[in-house]
Amino acid sequence: MEESTAEKIEEEVSTVIDEAKDLQDSVSAHISKTINDEQPLRQRALHLDSKIRSLRSSLYSILSNNHTLADKLDEDLQRARCIVVDGDAATLLPGHAQGRFLRMFIGPINVRASKKDVQLKVKEEYNSYRDKTALLFLLFPAILLILRSWVWDGCLPAFPVQMYQAWLLFLYTGLALRENILRVNGSDIRPWWIYHHYCAMIMALVSLTWEIKGQPDCAKKQRGVELFLQWAMMQGVAMLLQNRYQRQRLYTRIALGKAKRMDVVWGETAGVDGQLWLLCPILFILQGFEAYVGVLLLNTAFVGVVSEWQVIFCGILLVLMAVGNFTNTVQTLMVKSRFKAKMIKSKSKQRLN
Amino acid sequence: MEESTAEKIEEEVSTVIDEAKDLQDSVSAHISKTINDEQPLRQRALHLDSKIRSLRSSLYSILSNNHTLADKLDEDLQRARCIVVDGDAATLLPGHAQGRFLRMFIGPINVRASKKDVQLKVKEEYNSYRDKTALLFLLFPAILLILRSWVWDGCLPAFPVQMYQAWLLFLYTGLALRENILRVNGSDIRPWWIYHHYCAMIMALVSLTWEIKGQPDCAKKQRGVELFLQWAMMQGVAMLLQNRYQRQRLYTRIALGKAKRMDVVWGETAGVDGQLWLLCPILFILQGFEAYVGVLLLNTAFVGVVSEWQVIFCGILLVLMAVGNFTNTVQTLMVKSRFKAKMIKSKSKQRLN
Repeated sequence: MEESTAEKIEEEVSTVIDEAKDLQDSVSAHISKTINDEQPLRQRALHLDSKIRSLRSSLYSILSNNHTLADKLDEDLQRARCIVVDGDAATLLPGHAQGRFLRMFIGPINVRASKKDVQLKVKEEYNSYRDKTALLFLLFPAILLILRSWVWDGCLPAFPVQMYQAWLLFLYTGLALRENILRVNGSDIRPWWIYHHYCAMIMALVSLTWEIKGQPDCAKKQRGVELFLQWAMMQGVAMLLQNRYQRQRLYTRIALGKAKRMDVVWGETAGVDGQLWLLCPILFILQGFEAYVGVLLLNTAFVGVVSEWQVIFCGILLVLMAVGNFTNTVQTLMVKSRFKAKMIKSKSKQRLN
Repeated sequence: MEESTAEKIEEEVSTVIDEAKDLQDSVSAHISKTINDEQPLRQRALHLDSKIRSLRSSLYSILSNNHTLADKLDEDLQRARCIVVDGDAATLLPGHAQGRFLRMFIGPINVRASKKDVQLKVKEEYNSYRDKTALLFLLFPAILLILRSWVWDGCLPAFPVQMYQAWLLFLYTGLALRENILRVNGSDIRPWWIYHHYCAMIMALVSLTWEIKGQPDCAKKQRGVELFLQWAMMQGVAMLLQNRYQRQRLYTRIALGKAKRMDVVWGETAGVDGQLWLLCPILFILQGFEAYVGVLLLNTAFVGVVSEWQVIFCGILLVLMAVGNFTNTVQTLMVKSRFKAKMIKSKSKQRLN
């Protein structure tokens, strides 16, 4: 009886080992088969993608005397591109390479989604993260400023301000990581907006080391912090407007089959004319205010009220960020207006013909 | 002639649209086929994994009077488990769920590697990251302390110390993210070591807001910083020793077929006896020194030399971290010694039989 138990269990164990080996063979066969099957599909996707590009670039020169047809065919090609770039085939096309920033934080792990619906989930989550963020962006400094005049008697205590700065650091790191991941997944987000978040990360880090001066003469010493908080509130309002507008616009464009859903289109790259005329002035005012806060910080440093290096550094960084934002917004607007001019020209040509 | 060009290009565009639709269909068929083929393999892997577990747990009670056989079969089962858990099938077994920390920073993107060799690449990169880190851990504070006595006349300037603290924050964030990713990929790293890095992140953040006091009476005011830097240097030495030891041990165990290669086995969970007796005292001394620095910080705060909240907070955190480290090290050693006692007992029993 005992002998048989031992035999039975020995047999079971050897079966288990065989099963494990079998499983290993089956799984590795499955993996290599999947990769093999993927190869021709990837080739087709790449070929089709480049074909669409070349057709679109030559369309208007070939059909120079038939712009109606060219417009129609261009729209067809855009729809074809959307099927390739926004459907399941998108996972086979190369995205942007994973940059240094991602490698620094999370190492060489692949963050490219293998299914299109996961890519879209990532994009959706990014949008809702930005929504939540914008609200906090509005509330957090508002509460600080309200408490300052009602409770703290005109003088911000260091702790809540530092909490806010730490939150900013965390927030910008998260945004920069997410945007890098979106880029890997094929989004065409303008690199400047990611650099902008790197700058904001550095600024949050530097501001943490910046001593919050108290009494006496609090109002004068904390003028920089106060301006910064006001600017952050305006940023919150602008972000809320942008998010609303972006999402609406993105959905419209998806419906028209014109946009890749992975695009993170910031307010600055906007296209819907009506709302753009509301958004653009707000953006320019914000950028102006950003530069103004920067100059004011530099001023406090050079007049000698607060002469720490952090103040000078943050001042320069704010001015640079404002200039960068402004340049990028103007560039986008110029691309748009050039495109528009081309459209109008081609239409008037049609009429002349 | 012109008509024919137009016709030709129209035809080409309609071909492209058809090709795009075809491609979309083929790719989505390929994806769903892959998922379908994976399903039975996943079932087999799960079934086999649980079978191995149940066999191993009942082995010694069933074969209570034949420990030689039980030992042999247990080794066989360990080898089978290694094939399942360390081979290609590993990607089909569920890893740890992606925790809040990862979601907070990078959103819902999947960081589970789809191929085993990628998982191993991630592990290797983590190891080399730790190696580089350990070296900096040793050099950075050493340079600060050397410059302090040779160049800075006994008084650390704020900027380089803050640079160091910012680097620590970045470093611990990177380590915590990587360890979370390793866990998702099936590593059995003890949760405490990840919590430990969260604590270290918080401490680095808090220390950034902590004003570095200068003259007069620099030596007294900067006693905390000095102790902290000394502790960091010891940490660097210990990390270098640990890394060497870990890698060596891991490779030995992989060769023996006993370890999953995804395990991040810290010094504290060590098994190779010879080197363990070198490592353990160093670890205990480090933990003691960690607690000592914590208590000293609390002391400076309560005596009133530097009475900022940051000092108290860092002091408490250091003591907690030291206690946690100590508890976890002792627990691991106890598990080991219990296992050893069992082995000795079973061997002496064999001899009696």
